[in-house]
Amino acid sequence: MKQAIKYQVITLFPEMFEGVFGSSMMWKAQKDGIVELTTVNLRDFGLGPRRQVDDTPYGGGDGMLLMIEPLWRAVEHAKAQDPSAKVLLMSPTGDRWNQASAQSYSETAHGYIFICGRYEGYDERIMQLVDQVISVGDYVLTGGELPAMTIIDSIVRLIPGVLGGAESAAIESFSDGETLEFPQYTRPEEWNGMHVPEVLLSGNHGNIAKWRAAHSQKAA
Amino acid sequence: MKQAIKYQVITLFPEMFEGVFGSSMMWKAQKDGIVELTTVNLRDFGLGPRRQVDDTPYGGGDGMLLMIEPLWRAVEHAKAQDPSAKVLLMSPTGDRWNQASAQSYSETAHGYIFICGRYEGYDERIMQLVDQVISVGDYVLTGGELPAMTIIDSIVRLIPGVLGGAESAAIESFSDGETLEFPQYTRPEEWNGMHVPEVLLSGNHGNIAKWRAAHSQKAA
Repeated sequence: MKQAIKYQVITLFPEMFEGVFGSSMMWKAQKDGIVELTTVNLRDFGLGPRRQVDDTPYGGGDGMLLMIEPLWRAVEHAKAQDPSAKVLLMSPTGDRWNQASAQSYSETAHGYIFICGRYEGYDERIMQLVDQVISVGDYVLTGGELPAMTIIDSIVRLIPGVLGGAESAAIESFSDGETLEFPQYTRPEEWNGMHVPEVLLSGNHGNIAKWRAAHSQKAA
Repeated sequence: MKQAIKYQVITLFPEMFEGVFGSSMMWKAQKDGIVELTTVNLRDFGLGPRRQVDDTPYGGGDGMLLMIEPLWRAVEHAKAQDPSAKVLLMSPTGDRWNQASAQSYSETAHGYIFICGRYEGYDERIMQLVDQVISVGDYVLTGGELPAMTIIDSIVRLIPGVLGGAESAAIESFSDGETLEFPQYTRPEEWNGMHVPEVLLSGNHGNIAKWRAAHSQKAA
């Protein structure tokens, strides 16, 4: 049997991941042994009796930064579980994530380690251990947790065996990387005076395909 | 006292939101009475004894679509809690979310209702109730849940009173909408042979500001 691919997330808020990793597609991909989704609590690597993980920035500034030592040790711990894993840091300054990235990441045999910064910031020296900095979009979030979940979802659903044919209805992916979405309808034929377009009830597959092509929008 | 702004999320997976709404900034914004974050379980509006929420598409296709009736009644239920709320649908075909959208949404007095599709799709007639379709990026996800969390996080952190000055260290937002990030360092001065740049230890605020400007990257 193939080994499950490991996705390890380093975070101060592991409880944010419980419901997300425990539901729907991500839950099923773990149950089927395709992936292993775990969190590493950065607090466990904190310094001293108070398990300190942050401190004020050199050169001044209001915020607190994640210190290098706990972060470094957390990455080392995750690497020990999965030495070939690539280390990803979530930041709005990073490379923009897209569907082509998700596709290519879904085809690797190695795992991934996600570092979730909090947007007060982190000590820059962690970059020594980082393979890629990734941004999910042009907006600022409180931490890297939601971006990590987003990236993991977009990758895992593309791993062969995770989804059945169920997704192909709404989304068609083409070899040029374009993904199209068209309007869809299900029972009942009439709701609050709104009717399903006649052509979709016609049983004429040629006309249905033409109608769908004419009503498609680029999705990703 | 000002009324908390309501963010209601219609989803088949309310358990995905527990850890995210219950942690960090989002937890604090609720505790302080600034926002109210709730989920509406679409399953509660399912049809018949099996609480059916999906059915096969007219015109053929592999997937199952969210039916119009449960979705419609769930939106009506959410609207009854908050009649002035705007209804947002998460879809990769939607308007691209960015920092300017987050800023403008954080300034409204009304609440928001998020409809989380699953990417098998939904009955198009729900669009009658939708004010805006939003995409968080050029990638396909299993459902609208992670995009809804992402949008809520990006808005709520900008509402006055939610964050202190703590965030201003790493991120500087300018009136032209540009957000810059620069490398930061905290104790210790040396780690594994890597040193903090001398200028940041100099106490010379002019030079520190110049160094930070020269090392800034666009964030969002």
